[in-house]
Amino acid sequence: MTRFASSVTNLRSSEIRDLMSLATAPDIISFAGGMPGNELFPLETLDRIYQSLTEKEKQTALQYGPTTGLPSLLESLSDYLEKKGLPVKSNRLMITTGSLQAIHILAKAFIDPGDPVLVENPGFIGALSAFRAYQANLVSIPLKEDGMDIDQLKKRLETTLPAPKFLYYTPNFHNPAGIIYSRKVKQEMMALLKEREIPVIEDDAYSELYFYDEDLPEMRLMKATDPEGIDVCYTGSFSKILGPGLRLGWMLVPDEIYRKCELIKQSIDACSPSISQMLADKFIRRGDVYNYTANIREEYKKRGLAMIGALEAFLPAYVTFEKPRGGFYTWLQLPEGSNATAILKKAIEKGVVFVTGKTFDPDGIKNDCMRVSFCNTDVETIRRGVPLIAEAIKEMCGP
Amino acid sequence: MTRFASSVTNLRSSEIRDLMSLATAPDIISFAGGMPGNELFPLETLDRIYQSLTEKEKQTALQYGPTTGLPSLLESLSDYLEKKGLPVKSNRLMITTGSLQAIHILAKAFIDPGDPVLVENPGFIGALSAFRAYQANLVSIPLKEDGMDIDQLKKRLETTLPAPKFLYYTPNFHNPAGIIYSRKVKQEMMALLKEREIPVIEDDAYSELYFYDEDLPEMRLMKATDPEGIDVCYTGSFSKILGPGLRLGWMLVPDEIYRKCELIKQSIDACSPSISQMLADKFIRRGDVYNYTANIREEYKKRGLAMIGALEAFLPAYVTFEKPRGGFYTWLQLPEGSNATAILKKAIEKGVVFVTGKTFDPDGIKNDCMRVSFCNTDVETIRRGVPLIAEAIKEMCGP
Repeated sequence: MTRFASSVTNLRSSEIRDLMSLATAPDIISFAGGMPGNELFPLETLDRIYQSLTEKEKQTALQYGPTTGLPSLLESLSDYLEKKGLPVKSNRLMITTGSLQAIHILAKAFIDPGDPVLVENPGFIGALSAFRAYQANLVSIPLKEDGMDIDQLKKRLETTLPAPKFLYYTPNFHNPAGIIYSRKVKQEMMALLKEREIPVIEDDAYSELYFYDEDLPEMRLMKATDPEGIDVCYTGSFSKILGPGLRLGWMLVPDEIYRKCELIKQSIDACSPSISQMLADKFIRRGDVYNYTANIREEYKKRGLAMIGALEAFLPAYVTFEKPRGGFYTWLQLPEGSNATAILKKAIEKGVVFVTGKTFDPDGIKNDCMRVSFCNTDVETIRRGVPLIAEAIKEMCGP
Repeated sequence: MTRFASSVTNLRSSEIRDLMSLATAPDIISFAGGMPGNELFPLETLDRIYQSLTEKEKQTALQYGPTTGLPSLLESLSDYLEKKGLPVKSNRLMITTGSLQAIHILAKAFIDPGDPVLVENPGFIGALSAFRAYQANLVSIPLKEDGMDIDQLKKRLETTLPAPKFLYYTPNFHNPAGIIYSRKVKQEMMALLKEREIPVIEDDAYSELYFYDEDLPEMRLMKATDPEGIDVCYTGSFSKILGPGLRLGWMLVPDEIYRKCELIKQSIDACSPSISQMLADKFIRRGDVYNYTANIREEYKKRGLAMIGALEAFLPAYVTFEKPRGGFYTWLQLPEGSNATAILKKAIEKGVVFVTGKTFDPDGIKNDCMRVSFCNTDVETIRRGVPLIAEAIKEMCGP
């Protein structure tokens, strides 16, 4: 009996999840997660914001809001994004239930079963799962240290038929690759996409978490250049600048796309949580977001530098990685043909976990790489954990 | 250029929404909304709950949670549902971002384009839009005063090919029809569905809002009878028992369906808002939910009775309606062929709004009926507003 819809018939829980469920020891060191450290959340600020809410604001927080977002948050967030150089006036802003929902809605708006979409390899698993949920044909482009491999992108654009529905990419502090796209690569991408009128989903979840001010010019967003002839769908999140538990993100998109997405969102959850929106609005309006991101930037920089230091000290020389300049992740390249899943099993025995490379491969194959997060472990724990990872690698791949 | 996916190409904003946007006068009386009155939210309880949160709980509230819900809420909600007689032990419970998301996920799990699904006429527009979003063929069954027209259901089951993927229905205090399904109708439905192994989505958003204890036996849920041979997907919501702004609902479903739905939810928003889940969990554990629902039941009963009284006093005799015994809505039947949209335009001139019948017709046609809500207006306002509706009806349909 064809009980379920064809798009979900073959959905399976990932192997990595099954493996992770083995790692239940309470004292296990986890470099696996992509979440902020609990100890870094702005709890005192949250208290002050809650105390400041009027009766009317609390009522608004408990009531349905407009599908596209509370007007007050749309206003404050517009202002915040405009300060980042984004063209808020010539686009429409929509609040979503996390930036994953923004990506999911865009996937639903564009993808018919079998449609090709261009993605990165490695790429963000949340987006890949949203594209798979609409049975997209994932056409993956390898990443280099400064972004997509442009020659490969060119080749894929020439050979992929029908034309891809969109290109999805994450410009800054890539998950999992940890890299920043160079200005040059973005310009070359735009030139190629413009010719073919292919829209872009620019997933910018991490850009506030830069370690070095000097990187800001290189990090300039495609959306900020507002390229003529390309529909850039910019997505962002409160998860890294306030807290993922609010489930709040946004999309900044051209009007025609906005109108389709609004109708889709109406059928998914009617509106995003008002209580989260109320808190996020105050967080921006009171200026807390600027102080808070300045603080966590410093903390993640400490963790990132500790990670780099420990990796350099303990990893065998045949493991290479790009030094992160922000964000949450380091991405280790193992000798070709290595099996990160076997290393993970060994690492779990030693009391430490990470995420295997193939989890992030749109084709689910390439496993000679691994993601090691530094977001959710303090400096001391990083220094204790990295040697264990190095041991596991050496035991599996040689000294 | 076929820019958008085929499922969204024809999506349009509803006429009713365009009309409503005309009704912007701040002093307009609205019988249109389906939301609780702002003045009824338990703000003091919310304050007490927030004050009681430990540092660790606040961290949990700001962090990602499991896709299927915070363990603590799953436990307290299971207990709450078990007290309502639901078979929580033989099913799986999942927290969703509003019960609309639960319905949307089930729609995605079951519907391929063109698949027939059985719905009520009139029916809940949120569910209809979710089913349309997956290009279902909506096969509608007319409602009578005690539930679905069983003869019509039988006929449709005999003539619809392929077999419908599921039947969607709302047993108690129907939106918009205001009715309760009788025990007899539910038994007849189950007998018919069991023969054909057709699953049911039982949308139970309103059942806590009963006016009369004596109705409880008649209101017994299909899920509570745990009928052998039928997969009942039970959905519920915190929107009516705490606040829609939390965006929290749930589904209680058989294991096989749960596992598909979990994978779908992973790709939609990863998890529901932790902050809302934390507050809802405390609201149940402290027993607040029982006191609060007892209070609002009394208040909505006052409003419902005021609505019945005013309608009986002012409506022309040719307008009929079932007296609500709970919930949020009254449903007026106008003379056959009347045009509720014309009446709405007239009503807006007089300073009062409601929702036209065809908004709730899965086929978007039948417009000789209208939904008049009593949830979001106090007794005094109901008494002021109903005569204006009666005037508008008389001016359009005769004295």
